[in-house]
Amino acid sequence: MMINFTPGPSQLYFTVEGHMRKAFREGVPSLSHRTSAFEQISRHATEGLKSLLNIPADFHVFFTGSATEIWERCIQNLVENYSLHLVNGAFSKRFYEIAGQLNKTAHRVEAAAGQGFSELPRVETTPELIALTHNETSTGVSLALPLLHQFRDQFPQSLIVVDAVSSLPYPQFDYSKIDSVFFSVQKGFGLPAGLGVWVVNDRCIAKAEALLSKGVSIGTYHNLPTLLANAKKHQTPETPNVLAIYLLGKVIEDFQRRGIQVLRKETEYKAAILYQALKAHPLVNPFVTDPTYQSKTVLVAETGSHTESITRHLINNGLHPGDGYGDRKKSQLRFANFPTHSKETFERLVDVLNSIT
Amino acid sequence: MMINFTPGPSQLYFTVEGHMRKAFREGVPSLSHRTSAFEQISRHATEGLKSLLNIPADFHVFFTGSATEIWERCIQNLVENYSLHLVNGAFSKRFYEIAGQLNKTAHRVEAAAGQGFSELPRVETTPELIALTHNETSTGVSLALPLLHQFRDQFPQSLIVVDAVSSLPYPQFDYSKIDSVFFSVQKGFGLPAGLGVWVVNDRCIAKAEALLSKGVSIGTYHNLPTLLANAKKHQTPETPNVLAIYLLGKVIEDFQRRGIQVLRKETEYKAAILYQALKAHPLVNPFVTDPTYQSKTVLVAETGSHTESITRHLINNGLHPGDGYGDRKKSQLRFANFPTHSKETFERLVDVLNSIT
Repeated sequence: MMINFTPGPSQLYFTVEGHMRKAFREGVPSLSHRTSAFEQISRHATEGLKSLLNIPADFHVFFTGSATEIWERCIQNLVENYSLHLVNGAFSKRFYEIAGQLNKTAHRVEAAAGQGFSELPRVETTPELIALTHNETSTGVSLALPLLHQFRDQFPQSLIVVDAVSSLPYPQFDYSKIDSVFFSVQKGFGLPAGLGVWVVNDRCIAKAEALLSKGVSIGTYHNLPTLLANAKKHQTPETPNVLAIYLLGKVIEDFQRRGIQVLRKETEYKAAILYQALKAHPLVNPFVTDPTYQSKTVLVAETGSHTESITRHLINNGLHPGDGYGDRKKSQLRFANFPTHSKETFERLVDVLNSIT
Repeated sequence: MMINFTPGPSQLYFTVEGHMRKAFREGVPSLSHRTSAFEQISRHATEGLKSLLNIPADFHVFFTGSATEIWERCIQNLVENYSLHLVNGAFSKRFYEIAGQLNKTAHRVEAAAGQGFSELPRVETTPELIALTHNETSTGVSLALPLLHQFRDQFPQSLIVVDAVSSLPYPQFDYSKIDSVFFSVQKGFGLPAGLGVWVVNDRCIAKAEALLSKGVSIGTYHNLPTLLANAKKHQTPETPNVLAIYLLGKVIEDFQRRGIQVLRKETEYKAAILYQALKAHPLVNPFVTDPTYQSKTVLVAETGSHTESITRHLINNGLHPGDGYGDRKKSQLRFANFPTHSKETFERLVDVLNSIT
């Protein structure tokens, strides 16, 4: 059996197929979303998520089609004029570009590829929204939590929005320091793609309502007031991906059974042994060299001219690495380190890498 | 086993569970969408759809999160100022309201509940977009194809956009008379919810490009030029609902094996026997009385004070009707007539209804 290390869609969490069969037995795929049975499913997933990640009661959980959609909805609902983006790779850059496409003035501070941020940016105007990417999937660079949590005090008027698409459930955010966080389910949660999860606090709701009352268009079925009015009834404005919401609730249950602290410790152990192997290896290196910036959940190897042969060797051993992103497709490999990837799998990955000389 | 007649999400097409198991065996749920394997899946679904529905080559097929999303994308991409909406129920009204939420000037011509349209509307300004709802799911009213096909000649400058959410694959549109049509997969295609399908011609693409060049925001990842650039490579801008696209391709194959003309004939037969039963029944009536307006795919029964007892009787016989919509929840029942509902199932539904006196 091939183990998939691509950073999303990635290896399914090992319980998903069983949950899918149960969903069919229970009639979930043909369940009307305007029923109390659906509301139970929706409530189970959102309450489970808040409990798993220790999200405070004054935050709300909304479902979208993708995390890409959430980039767009953040700008529509939370920005009248001016957003600030910390850009250190293709995905944080895309969030920045989306603001421009929606006719907002977007500014960016940029780090070189493989580099992260070590200090707060200096700006002349207070941004309405500050977009932080906790884990840049294209480069394997993380924004360290101590720095991420400093933005609130420096920018008390700004909404702090965190893209945690490829890091949750690993990071333990201090939710008093951020206003919104989002992810998609096909990465750390090990589910089939097709669902984005958007967590916002009441400051975000108030901002969207203020824009609306000024006559700014904040979108339609997925604007924050509409999402909130529906979520209060454990409902959604449109017919959602019911099956994905059901599966999310089930996988969260599985995560809770193992314990979030166990998942976090294992993530750190697996990251440590792989970074150590990459550093010690004669043919490869970690792309991100500064440990402060090294992602724990998407690890990128600089494999240079050995990329193809290493890929072949890994695949022959049942281990499917992710390609490097964009321009670095032929010179890097990426390894997702999600809850579905067991310690044994990572030990095996390290052994196989070490056998290549 | 309970047969689900709710008009969406509805009864799954009977082959779906088997296709889902095969998808898991083939690794589809964890497949990266940036692979040629995904491109094959996407191509199979879009080419299958065009072949099944006889859609001309100059139309493009795009995937969204829902049909609700497509309402929003239609207005964003195809309207600078003014759209016209034929409204005859809750869903056509929602499309109209979305135009207003996006700060466009939307006009509507409205039919009473249970009534349809018998002539072209008269307007003073040429609408950029005319929104037609082929099948209003809330009331079971259809727009007759001969009338639907007259709009093009009367409004040659307008884009004719058809909501066929709860009627496709049944209607045989003349694609030279319309510019766009859309649906969601949890109705006629018998799939789990979580995917909208948007079909547009090059006039729509040109309109979106013209708006963009004037500085009008047409959205971001799901604007028409971006969708088209990706679709040309059988790709999507975001990580899509890969599993749903796979299942859609498989169900389309099944439909093609049975033959679209067989499906259409069966739809007409099933509709005929149920309308006949409703008309002859001592306790119920068809809500839509004029045969010109009677939907073939969502049939609505006026059940008045007998609604609860009829519902109970049907459920006791393994037949789950859909509730009436909105205000008519306690006085009507709705019956979906989709390809998954066999002739035998409809004959049984009629027998059970007739046994209630």
